Amino acid sequence: MAIHLVEKYSESFISADEYKNIQSDVSAAHSLLCNRNGAGSDFLGWVTLPEDYDKEEFARIKVAAEKIKKTSSVFIVVGIGGSYLGARAVIEFLKSPLYNSLPKDTPDIYFAGNCISAVSMAEIAQLCRDRDVCINVISKSGTTTEPAVAFRVLRGMLEEKYGVEGARERIFVTTDKAKGTLKSFSDDAGYETFVVPDDVGGRFSVLTAVGLLPIAVAGIDIDALMKGAADAKLTYISDDIEKNDAYKYAAMRNILYRKGKTTEILVGYEPYAMMLNEWWKQLYGESEGKDQKGIFPASVIFSTDLHSLGQYIQDGTRNLFETVISVEDNHETFDIPNDPANIDGLNFLSGTDLNLVKKTAMQATLLAHVDGGVPNILIELADRSAYSLGYLIYFFELACAISGYILGVNPFNQPGVEEYKKNMFALLGKPGYEKLAEELKGRIN
Amino acid sequence: MAIHLVEKYSESFISADEYKNIQSDVSAAHSLLCNRNGAGSDFLGWVTLPEDYDKEEFARIKVAAEKIKKTSSVFIVVGIGGSYLGARAVIEFLKSPLYNSLPKDTPDIYFAGNCISAVSMAEIAQLCRDRDVCINVISKSGTTTEPAVAFRVLRGMLEEKYGVEGARERIFVTTDKAKGTLKSFSDDAGYETFVVPDDVGGRFSVLTAVGLLPIAVAGIDIDALMKGAADAKLTYISDDIEKNDAYKYAAMRNILYRKGKTTEILVGYEPYAMMLNEWWKQLYGESEGKDQKGIFPASVIFSTDLHSLGQYIQDGTRNLFETVISVEDNHETFDIPNDPANIDGLNFLSGTDLNLVKKTAMQATLLAHVDGGVPNILIELADRSAYSLGYLIYFFELACAISGYILGVNPFNQPGVEEYKKNMFALLGKPGYEKLAEELKGRIN
Repeated sequence: MAIHLVEKYSESFISADEYKNIQSDVSAAHSLLCNRNGAGSDFLGWVTLPEDYDKEEFARIKVAAEKIKKTSSVFIVVGIGGSYLGARAVIEFLKSPLYNSLPKDTPDIYFAGNCISAVSMAEIAQLCRDRDVCINVISKSGTTTEPAVAFRVLRGMLEEKYGVEGARERIFVTTDKAKGTLKSFSDDAGYETFVVPDDVGGRFSVLTAVGLLPIAVAGIDIDALMKGAADAKLTYISDDIEKNDAYKYAAMRNILYRKGKTTEILVGYEPYAMMLNEWWKQLYGESEGKDQKGIFPASVIFSTDLHSLGQYIQDGTRNLFETVISVEDNHETFDIPNDPANIDGLNFLSGTDLNLVKKTAMQATLLAHVDGGVPNILIELADRSAYSLGYLIYFFELACAISGYILGVNPFNQPGVEEYKKNMFALLGKPGYEKLAEELKGRIN
Repeated sequence: MAIHLVEKYSESFISADEYKNIQSDVSAAHSLLCNRNGAGSDFLGWVTLPEDYDKEEFARIKVAAEKIKKTSSVFIVVGIGGSYLGARAVIEFLKSPLYNSLPKDTPDIYFAGNCISAVSMAEIAQLCRDRDVCINVISKSGTTTEPAVAFRVLRGMLEEKYGVEGARERIFVTTDKAKGTLKSFSDDAGYETFVVPDDVGGRFSVLTAVGLLPIAVAGIDIDALMKGAADAKLTYISDDIEKNDAYKYAAMRNILYRKGKTTEILVGYEPYAMMLNEWWKQLYGESEGKDQKGIFPASVIFSTDLHSLGQYIQDGTRNLFETVISVEDNHETFDIPNDPANIDGLNFLSGTDLNLVKKTAMQATLLAHVDGGVPNILIELADRSAYSLGYLIYFFELACAISGYILGVNPFNQPGVEEYKKNMFALLGKPGYEKLAEELKGRIN
């Protein structure tokens, strides 16, 4: 098993009885998921995805990735939310947050269409200048404002640079399999298309073409990623929390939430985990933050943020718990050099591998935060590999579904995301929104 | 004034009486700050810094920055917490989070010594290969583990590459003015040194040499930055919250906190603001998160995170409020191109500047979140300039001090940060920690 859940650092906050008492809720949630009769059950495609994915499309993804690698030195991924965070999380976790700066035989990868920014758009255009570019636009409907605007700009740029025919070979579209203007336009234009499945919501889509194409372009082994997820699926089958760590994690979160721990901080100990934290925040925040309830998802990277949010976590308002991901093997070592001058007084560490120092810092922090009144859930991940990360992704997705059902929400919708969009279209003068526009304008002026 | 505080979006959550009732607390806090008789008053150097800084050192910073620009294509800044976040926040805000990737006539800048990571250390070494490198190590004591280890590695690397004499010209040390082994070693070795003042805590130090040297290397106008802070100092002098927006912000936070809003989300609308959010999180979290109280500081970048945490903010647990920074002028425009095919149905926006769309998205979101029960404090910042950012930095520092005093804590200490360090030294076998080590080892095995 690629994951080991450690309960030791929450023992003083959760009694054996509490685990027993929540088992019936967990079993009920399990039943909703397995029998597909819970809220949002039209969106359970992610459950079987690691085994039942489209093998033909998977092969095409690999071919497209090779083509992109061969023909471009800059690859722009256009998408927002679940069409952005999953790919970026995996690429940074397995390659580096400094991926673009480090030497490599794969293209630089930039993410566009995830904000409304003249500054960013101008920067992306600048980064493409005098370089060979391919793009992947990811949008189920094709009408989401942010990626749509970026696609307008980039398509124009590519057609100007390579002509309509040349651009055709450089534009890859991940969208609905049949519906929507983006799909029909792409077919007419001759772009290669990949599918955003109907039954997989954005935040659960990293193991579909949405995530896999950019991940493959970065040179990551997507077979291993899927195999990890598939093995996790086989592992987490029991409804008994003593036999299912994903369900246990879901149970622990709800036990803590019910006793006032309303904020969960996901803790990583390597800079490469930062975007994985962001992916996790969307997964849990969007799945559970509704009906005026849910745990607020926050994140930190230690030891960096021990010198920032560390004080608060140690000693601030006690409505927090932490979930710590410890990557056991980084496949990289770095021994601390000796310093004859011993300026820093650290010669007792000379020759020690930084991985050991990091692990010790983590243990030290776990104990300090527990002593400060913060329950800690420790997730040990075997190593920094595509296999283990696929395993972890599935672990989190499954735990999220169960946790949402325990909380009593529909873990698969996001009705709140429409509120700002509706207001925005009204204020931007979109036809059909005239009445709302009038009402809103009175409130902002 | 570079800042305009807008109360409209919190009006329905804070009554006029509440402002009146908290005025006496604000005045008391003001008095503690002005009379320097509050908790932590040994650390008020930041108050007068924008006017009373060391002009000779300031000039040396500029000279050193020019030397670094001339002699290196990679500049490594070694520091953690307040010796890391301020410089990075300012550089990304005024240049770009993609600063290293974009064309420029200043060196690439990487940050090291802010984590314990074999992976990161190996990457930094790789980024320095075959390039000319200067480093700035920033550490008051010189003994903090993370930067100390990075300094060992980088000093060794530079001496191997350039010889001891050559390395001397490439190592810049920001540390205590007199005490500490790093200062005496640097003097002996002939490194140019800059001062971490005794009366300015790390999180308040961005406008000292700690922040200014890296900021100047990035080609930013540090005179303008200081001038903005100095003008903010002149602006925010009254203790009357109706005449002092920094104090009003402090008052609003405390009013909301006392009615159960225990999490504040700092919202930016441009990707370049992300590290400013991180700087702010340290400033507020470390200043107020103590004695089991304080507001938990979180952050987002919209519209990106409207497609991630947006659902939670709109409709999750109602213990949140938002503080939104709106940069009124980006000094950059980008008009949405027309698309004859109108694939995305957005032709009603053709020719519209993205800045306008962004501003509208912000107004739309303010209204949606207020309707969802989330108070919003809006801070309008005049533009994306060093002057305005200096102004904002001082605004936040001053408001933080007042807010902390209203809360009844010492805003200038961070006792909780020592807890994990103590445990870490014990577990790493540092001489003198044997007894604690034994106790802790029983708890982790």
